[in-house]
Amino acid sequence: MKLIENSLGRLVPTEVNGKPARPFAGLGKTPPTGRKSGPPIRHGADYGDKSLKNLEEAVEAANLKNGSVISFHHHLRNGDFLLNRVMEIVAAKGLKDLVVAPSALFPCHEPLCDHIRNGVVSHIEGSMNGPVGRLCSTGGFSKTAILRSHGGRYRAIQDGDLHIDAAFIAAPTADAHGNATGDRGPSACGPLGFALADSLYADWVTVVTDNQVPFPCYPWMIEGGNVDRVVCVEQLGDPEKIISGTTRVTDDPERVRIAEMAARLVLDSGLMDESGFSFQAGAGGVSLKFVEFMGNFMREKGVVADFARGGSTELLVALLNEGLVKYILDGQSFDLHGVRSLAENPRHINTNPFVSYNYHTKGCFAPRVKASVLGATEIDFDFNVNVNTHSDGWLLHGIGGFTDAADAEVTIITAPLTRKIHSIVMPRVTTVTAPGESIDVFVCEYGVAVNPRRGDLVERLKGSALPMTTMEDLYAKAMELTGNHRTEAKTAEEIVAVIEYRDGTLIDSVRRVIPE
Amino acid sequence: MKLIENSLGRLVPTEVNGKPARPFAGLGKTPPTGRKSGPPIRHGADYGDKSLKNLEEAVEAANLKNGSVISFHHHLRNGDFLLNRVMEIVAAKGLKDLVVAPSALFPCHEPLCDHIRNGVVSHIEGSMNGPVGRLCSTGGFSKTAILRSHGGRYRAIQDGDLHIDAAFIAAPTADAHGNATGDRGPSACGPLGFALADSLYADWVTVVTDNQVPFPCYPWMIEGGNVDRVVCVEQLGDPEKIISGTTRVTDDPERVRIAEMAARLVLDSGLMDESGFSFQAGAGGVSLKFVEFMGNFMREKGVVADFARGGSTELLVALLNEGLVKYILDGQSFDLHGVRSLAENPRHINTNPFVSYNYHTKGCFAPRVKASVLGATEIDFDFNVNVNTHSDGWLLHGIGGFTDAADAEVTIITAPLTRKIHSIVMPRVTTVTAPGESIDVFVCEYGVAVNPRRGDLVERLKGSALPMTTMEDLYAKAMELTGNHRTEAKTAEEIVAVIEYRDGTLIDSVRRVIPE
Repeated sequence: MKLIENSLGRLVPTEVNGKPARPFAGLGKTPPTGRKSGPPIRHGADYGDKSLKNLEEAVEAANLKNGSVISFHHHLRNGDFLLNRVMEIVAAKGLKDLVVAPSALFPCHEPLCDHIRNGVVSHIEGSMNGPVGRLCSTGGFSKTAILRSHGGRYRAIQDGDLHIDAAFIAAPTADAHGNATGDRGPSACGPLGFALADSLYADWVTVVTDNQVPFPCYPWMIEGGNVDRVVCVEQLGDPEKIISGTTRVTDDPERVRIAEMAARLVLDSGLMDESGFSFQAGAGGVSLKFVEFMGNFMREKGVVADFARGGSTELLVALLNEGLVKYILDGQSFDLHGVRSLAENPRHINTNPFVSYNYHTKGCFAPRVKASVLGATEIDFDFNVNVNTHSDGWLLHGIGGFTDAADAEVTIITAPLTRKIHSIVMPRVTTVTAPGESIDVFVCEYGVAVNPRRGDLVERLKGSALPMTTMEDLYAKAMELTGNHRTEAKTAEEIVAVIEYRDGTLIDSVRRVIPE
Repeated sequence: MKLIENSLGRLVPTEVNGKPARPFAGLGKTPPTGRKSGPPIRHGADYGDKSLKNLEEAVEAANLKNGSVISFHHHLRNGDFLLNRVMEIVAAKGLKDLVVAPSALFPCHEPLCDHIRNGVVSHIEGSMNGPVGRLCSTGGFSKTAILRSHGGRYRAIQDGDLHIDAAFIAAPTADAHGNATGDRGPSACGPLGFALADSLYADWVTVVTDNQVPFPCYPWMIEGGNVDRVVCVEQLGDPEKIISGTTRVTDDPERVRIAEMAARLVLDSGLMDESGFSFQAGAGGVSLKFVEFMGNFMREKGVVADFARGGSTELLVALLNEGLVKYILDGQSFDLHGVRSLAENPRHINTNPFVSYNYHTKGCFAPRVKASVLGATEIDFDFNVNVNTHSDGWLLHGIGGFTDAADAEVTIITAPLTRKIHSIVMPRVTTVTAPGESIDVFVCEYGVAVNPRRGDLVERLKGSALPMTTMEDLYAKAMELTGNHRTEAKTAEEIVAVIEYRDGTLIDSVRRVIPE
């Protein structure tokens, strides 16, 4: 495998699974060329009754071959039944070397490990975490895994870098034409946007539902005109695991402090005084607390946000209903309140990675977000962020929308300075997920470090009472706290996965872990 | 020009404007090959501020060259200011041989005639009527015009047969990102679906609005991620001509009788007794009266339609609000009631030609419509329909959605048997717009003729009290009424336009008229 050093000094392969790859060259430094992928033109005359009896028929109809690429979305999260069921049938047919291209994987997808070990699946393109990531880390894949962000996955499919032979789309509600939505039905999950690219560009698209309704299923998030076949199954997933009833705001004093500092940073930087305020935060405890503080500040100042980017949660929905946020631009609903609001409130907008995150468009929403709050497993002196591997080298997390959401005007990373015996701040992250260029601030319980590249932000924060610090000082503090513990990954030379940046270039490689 | 006979015995060219063309071969007999057109991949980094000051800048930015193809939609109908304004600027730049690709033209676009005469425009691809059609008929174009239906236009753009260099999209409401909608603003027109293909596939897309709102403009019908530039102008069009206040139901006794027979035909055929009833009718007086009768029958029988296809009108909206129709699937709003309902009623659904009419998809809505009522200028013994030319050969009308809507389970043509001194029924239509295979019934004031191909329908109508007849008998009646007047087109050999069927094949040619 030939390696080349990218602009961050990381060695990445020049070829991945036989296809040429380009090294990351810096933000905006790799303009795309060529034209979007064109899916096969179909004949209306061939599409009468699209119904199939069961998943076995659906797999048969998809006409899979050894080496085919099949895709799934992750809106049913840890409650998803579909991926495992389809893979069981595929395995029973004796197929080999399939590529599985999910928008994310969850612990419930552990059975995939056996299919990988048995050669049914060669590797994953898209996202991995938990057990499948662990298997990848030990060199258990026969080919190199490719990790992409949500926006990067859409881009790769759109640009033809990831050609999908057959997409299986779990649809909580659908009609016989294939129009499908996620906002209702017994397996309701909210948006279905992660399946949009699959529906538009895959050669063969199957919608699988456990709630068929008369035509037209409206609103539709997937259009029947892109769907080849429709299958009704007993149950798509376990509702309790598809969506949590309520997301939890943290009450840990240290985390509350981090969230408050992040919110004050937004306040003190004057972002809320500008027209068109907007923000994005996830569903983790700190993020939610940040949103709570945000709400308080907006209320005090009489500011109304033009929009908030979801993942939607009870808290965000409350701000929408109170009128503090004009619209929620939602990508996935994290709790039942989010799902219900999406179905009922016309100002709760269903989005997809094309409009929100895709870098190869005429602009997406991400850079229109004023303040984005994100977590990390590591951040380094140069503000490079790692969300994929732990400091010991294990690949345990997908990218999610991280690199895309980091396109916000001010991207703030929040994390405790240490986890167990590990420092979160490092001189150099184990793996780069997002370049330091795209990260603006790090907030932990010991203070706030602004990326020196953002002189404008340093200037705006003059006069702020926030405890300003540097990455170097935070690292020193962490060394003091952990008794100078330096975690180091014990890895072999072998590259088991590559991290693709949202522009399609390789930002880092992940090496095989040598277990203790 | 080399000609070939198609399956209807019509002579069509094997090549149009230097590109190969295929003859119509019968319904479903020309399966497509290849892949959809892929628009250029763009770089998010290039899309910061998209705003331009005025239309001059917008035309400049579009980088037009001699021979470029530019496109417009017709949702502003006879009130549109944009096409003429853009063409004025284009002409002033000294450009030549442009192709104009509108989804339709109206009398207000007469200034286009001068641009054609002066060589600024070589020909039209899409739709024509009135003055521009008249100019085309006399051989005033320097190249061959191509007429397409609404679905056929989407298909041609999607399949790459009609490559658009620059689209100018009139948007009654839009934001700075280019998200745009037609359902509100001073120039509100209802849907914007006729511009969807242009936004997805054109090399360069400009949104022009007279009502810019803060991001996000929601609902959006055009996505900002597909838009290159946004321009604000004083006024997009004349609201009084964009949309009529109210559409008029006919009260002419003969036309009322035609409408009633058409509605009774639907009733007597048992279509309303099946599950999933649905219908489509236009905004003409007879069509509206048909809808009124339909409502009465549904009320009497306690039938609720799963959906009605718009063009929406006051009458259709009333059926929606009464609960007799579950959804309106709207393609364009014909009056203010339609526009308002689309904006306010979540069961009034905005559609576009991809989902409704495009034959090269995995199915569109058209064949899901149970009964479709359409008008015609001529219909012949073989049920071929002409909606483009008059019997004297003049090309005066576009296809609209005719051939697409004729994909319904039962397609009914309504017309008076004679207009002025002309018979509507002909042994052979002057020009074939839609093949007789796709037409099921003709209803005029003298009776109902069912296409003999539809033996099932003949069977279903046994026992109906409707006055059944044949095309031959109706023609004899027309000859009696007109004193044996046979209108004949006086045309030269020269082909000035071709009629493309929705599958991309040529169904007929239009010849130059020799004026009296």
